[in-house]
Amino acid sequence: MRNTYVHGYSRREADRLSDQAGTLEELLHHDTVFPDGSRILEAGCGTGAQTAILAHRSPRALITAVDLSETSLKKASLRIDAQGIDTVYFHRADCTRLPYADHHFDHVFVCFMLEHLAQPGDVLAELRRVLQPGGSVTVIEGDHGSFYCYPETAAARQTVRCLIDLQAESGGDALIGRRLYPLLAGAGFNDIRVSPRVVYVDPSRPEWERGFSRDTFIAMVAGVGQVAIERRMMSPSAWQRGISDLKATIGKGTFHYTFFKAVGRSPGY
Amino acid sequence: MRNTYVHGYSRREADRLSDQAGTLEELLHHDTVFPDGSRILEAGCGTGAQTAILAHRSPRALITAVDLSETSLKKASLRIDAQGIDTVYFHRADCTRLPYADHHFDHVFVCFMLEHLAQPGDVLAELRRVLQPGGSVTVIEGDHGSFYCYPETAAARQTVRCLIDLQAESGGDALIGRRLYPLLAGAGFNDIRVSPRVVYVDPSRPEWERGFSRDTFIAMVAGVGQVAIERRMMSPSAWQRGISDLKATIGKGTFHYTFFKAVGRSPGY
Repeated sequence: MRNTYVHGYSRREADRLSDQAGTLEELLHHDTVFPDGSRILEAGCGTGAQTAILAHRSPRALITAVDLSETSLKKASLRIDAQGIDTVYFHRADCTRLPYADHHFDHVFVCFMLEHLAQPGDVLAELRRVLQPGGSVTVIEGDHGSFYCYPETAAARQTVRCLIDLQAESGGDALIGRRLYPLLAGAGFNDIRVSPRVVYVDPSRPEWERGFSRDTFIAMVAGVGQVAIERRMMSPSAWQRGISDLKATIGKGTFHYTFFKAVGRSPGY
Repeated sequence: MRNTYVHGYSRREADRLSDQAGTLEELLHHDTVFPDGSRILEAGCGTGAQTAILAHRSPRALITAVDLSETSLKKASLRIDAQGIDTVYFHRADCTRLPYADHHFDHVFVCFMLEHLAQPGDVLAELRRVLQPGGSVTVIEGDHGSFYCYPETAAARQTVRCLIDLQAESGGDALIGRRLYPLLAGAGFNDIRVSPRVVYVDPSRPEWERGFSRDTFIAMVAGVGQVAIERRMMSPSAWQRGISDLKATIGKGTFHYTFFKAVGRSPGY
């Protein structure tokens, strides 16, 4: 039963692109389904955005969601309660030293967490420890270096570069998507399959122009504007120009970003 | 009948990614199929590599393949003859002034040509002129700016930058893939659908490491080495380092490149 999970969904299905997936959620998560009754660990649940998706897509799986931040866990718990979900257990835990026995979980899931870590391999090794032999790990991360657009200006590129550099300074890696295969291999997982999840946006996809280009990606870049300017990484006018150049792609140009989803299996089966 | 072509293939099928397509040909061409008896124009056939694929995939279509170069046409003709194909007619022609009446063709096809042109919109407008109302245009181009890898060094990136800059100096645009939507829209085509065709390579795909990373992409970059060094765009040692850094991704890292396929329709139907 467990052995059927990783190979149990159609890979052709899995790798369809963004224009078929109505939403980012579908693009990233449509092929994450866990068996009824299986014990799932979500490592680094944050405020529970992915937790809710997991629970909805695998309504009979038993999800343990951990995070280091008590504040995040409270928000996540409120979110899950508000949705009437009763299959999620929240625990405060450090993902490099999880309070679980070896092989405690059937499957583990990590989304948008490794990008924040200086040593993502340590967390992956710990996840492997608590995973059943033959159990699967699923990792989803972005890669800001995969971004490009048309028209593309130097100022626009530089704003994105600021985001990448700031994340590197705080010990993370905004270019982690491209590293998922070597990271999982280095942590000892087997049968690793990585699939790029491409967001391609042009004026024929106005819902992606709004929902992804403007409200997700450009909003995220704009979020570091104050710090980037204070740190003199860019002048205020260059920053403003860069952000408006990014916005100028909407309605006439194109916008490109790639997420990566990796699935691996714990050895020993 | 013609109206069924553009929408006649499954878009979900069409947009599957590289790891399902066994070869680059399948990734780019599997969803290009023209009806029996339809008149197809291939603009800029070069030495006929794509022509042979077209003819094999649509064996009862009538293909007219044009190019400006007599030498290329001779090679293309030999290639097609050697394969026993008898559905292709070669003509020497300038794609900005085609020797055909308005609406002469049912469908037009362009692959890896627009990247070489200073005014790709002019060719697209001319293609629209010779296309039946409601007929389709198919354009396939790469985008060297979509390339990234892991590990990635400054020298590796710079070798690719040399290729992009040299193509720009000779009047082309190696970043044309991202422009297909606005180019087709600007040339007056309707119902434009662009799909990225992502090549994702990691050590689980050794045939792509050899066939794409090493023998296609790195070989292409290496091909401009002499010119780049003569022009002092990079020192000989920096160039060598860049090329070996690109090769060092093979067997342990990842390699990323995106082609774009656009299909549009001539208005007036």
